[in-house]
Amino acid sequence: MLVNFNEPYLSGNEFQNIADAVNSKMLAGNGKYTKLCQNYFQEKYNFRKCLLTTSCTDALEMAAILLNIKEGDEIIMPSYTFVSTANAFILRGAKIIFVDSRIDLPGIDEDKIESLITNKTKVIVPVHYAGIACDMDKIMALANQYGLFVVEDAAQAIDGYYTGKDGKKKALGSIGHFSAFSFHETKNIISGEGGMLIINDSSFIERAEIIWEKGTNRSSFYRGEVDKYGWIDVGSSFLPSEIIAAFLWAQLESMESIQNKRKELWDLYFTKLRKWSIDKGISLPKVPSYSTNNAHIFYLLCKNNKQRTALLSFLKDEKVIAVFHYLSLHSSTFYSSKYLGDDLIQSDKYSECLIRLPLYYNVDIDRVIDAIVRF
Amino acid sequence: MLVNFNEPYLSGNEFQNIADAVNSKMLAGNGKYTKLCQNYFQEKYNFRKCLLTTSCTDALEMAAILLNIKEGDEIIMPSYTFVSTANAFILRGAKIIFVDSRIDLPGIDEDKIESLITNKTKVIVPVHYAGIACDMDKIMALANQYGLFVVEDAAQAIDGYYTGKDGKKKALGSIGHFSAFSFHETKNIISGEGGMLIINDSSFIERAEIIWEKGTNRSSFYRGEVDKYGWIDVGSSFLPSEIIAAFLWAQLESMESIQNKRKELWDLYFTKLRKWSIDKGISLPKVPSYSTNNAHIFYLLCKNNKQRTALLSFLKDEKVIAVFHYLSLHSSTFYSSKYLGDDLIQSDKYSECLIRLPLYYNVDIDRVIDAIVRF
Repeated sequence: MLVNFNEPYLSGNEFQNIADAVNSKMLAGNGKYTKLCQNYFQEKYNFRKCLLTTSCTDALEMAAILLNIKEGDEIIMPSYTFVSTANAFILRGAKIIFVDSRIDLPGIDEDKIESLITNKTKVIVPVHYAGIACDMDKIMALANQYGLFVVEDAAQAIDGYYTGKDGKKKALGSIGHFSAFSFHETKNIISGEGGMLIINDSSFIERAEIIWEKGTNRSSFYRGEVDKYGWIDVGSSFLPSEIIAAFLWAQLESMESIQNKRKELWDLYFTKLRKWSIDKGISLPKVPSYSTNNAHIFYLLCKNNKQRTALLSFLKDEKVIAVFHYLSLHSSTFYSSKYLGDDLIQSDKYSECLIRLPLYYNVDIDRVIDAIVRF
Repeated sequence: MLVNFNEPYLSGNEFQNIADAVNSKMLAGNGKYTKLCQNYFQEKYNFRKCLLTTSCTDALEMAAILLNIKEGDEIIMPSYTFVSTANAFILRGAKIIFVDSRIDLPGIDEDKIESLITNKTKVIVPVHYAGIACDMDKIMALANQYGLFVVEDAAQAIDGYYTGKDGKKKALGSIGHFSAFSFHETKNIISGEGGMLIINDSSFIERAEIIWEKGTNRSSFYRGEVDKYGWIDVGSSFLPSEIIAAFLWAQLESMESIQNKRKELWDLYFTKLRKWSIDKGISLPKVPSYSTNNAHIFYLLCKNNKQRTALLSFLKDEKVIAVFHYLSLHSSTFYSSKYLGDDLIQSDKYSECLIRLPLYYNVDIDRVIDAIVRF
């Protein structure tokens, strides 16, 4: 019996909701379930404005369009991230300035950002890797000081929180000018493919609705604010079908039980692998005091690439599928010849040494732990 | 009892297919149902390569990225079309050159294209309005003569055919270098939101798969052609969820009955409104001899805007929802100040005088016809 790396979890109401959407004769985007999901997120996490998108990639692209990113603009982000973080801005002609990860965390090293800011810098994109918060006080202070925008790549960060120096606990995604979430099937809350753009800077909300609806003022039209709708800006088709939104709404109804179960599994890994990891020289994930743990990823950090290869291979023989990621973007086939910055030693360390363990509602965690400790 | 403008039709297997996708533990893109749909289209319509996308808009954007469209490039297309036809190229920095519609058809006037070609022209985008073919022999001849690419906007053209001078009947979408289809809920075959890019020029296939998969060679990786996948190009997340593909597959299983029913309804409108339309000076749709009729749209062309307003208003009072579209793009809020070309008289005529009647599987067509003839 194979232990898969990921399996989608169903709350039980997914089909009923889709059937309801069909019966309401509205299957395109921006219907009842889209609004239910968007309102849920706005109220629960204090996001200023939510717009569902077909993917987190598309949400990042929407942010880049809203920010009028153009050739010559520089965007600061970690190298240890998914390709979409960079592609969204490269599609607008921007240059990407990669920053190293922290020694203790795969996330961006906040203290290495300032020296990379130039008069061309327009945006900082912190990525809340594994749902663990970047130190947003530091990042927002830099943004304020240099007049930059912050787009939180919160793909993995649903239901995660940050507590800054003011002692206030804020949802990840509610802090930057924009943020982007993913509901890809590997995430805590899923809709197969799917995402969401958060617009916290209210000066961008009106244009965001237009770009979301293919550059038209259709949203205004349906609210009765204009008597016909037309083409008033660039845009794309960022809306997911109501089929996707209906599925997502069923997941949201089970948010608490999904999150509780994932945290329980995460804690089991942490407790049961602690002694073994020390013996092997392998590191377990760290959660800084300013961050909650949303239990999106449980990772192991091997002492070197050789050990990781051996462990992945051992687990494969045990029919347990664990995976590595990401390849540092600055050393990718696409970007290495364009990259002129310093070596990013920490980013390469996570690229070479990190393993993600299976973590989902119905995972047979005993099988995984049993296999690992026999390594 | 309201007669809606559109209602989605279910073939009956949609939920069963989605449940099957869930049970196969694969809900992201490019799974079993995506492949089933893509293979179906490739085989039935002789498309070289199909890639499902989240929308027709996204398929057009993929084509623009594949063609390396950049600032200064000129793209020729009709003004009487949906905003996405233009936005996809504007997002890459291109300039849009709008062409008038034909006197007899809302589609692009093929004879007005050549005089607009300059040394900056890169692409011609014919739009098969209402699934009625543009005269592709003329367009492909111009493309060959001037070294241009052709992207068929086949959003409305599923199951439509063109017969050229060589007497061969070719599916719409199989003729240009690329083509883009829509499965939006108002189309003949639907998945709520959804689309498809066709790549007929095989030199673009390899890169298309990469751009589709966020700029990575993940498709190659899953075929075992490379041992890990990474970032090798720009890209976006163009793949729809398997939830969407599973829904679409159920529709394709009923393609024949859906198409037969729509054609029957279209013919009923045509037959029963013929005498009335002559009396009123209203035109019914024309289908040129080189084109089939895929029964996507049944439209009326009023003699002027005043008559259209009166007819729409009368139908609304009769609880029959009919609609107009499109506002000519060259006179839109977004583009009118940028447009320096000639007046597009035919395009404006369709903008001002065309009405789309309700046309879907379960429409109460007698109610609609009865209301119209009483006008």
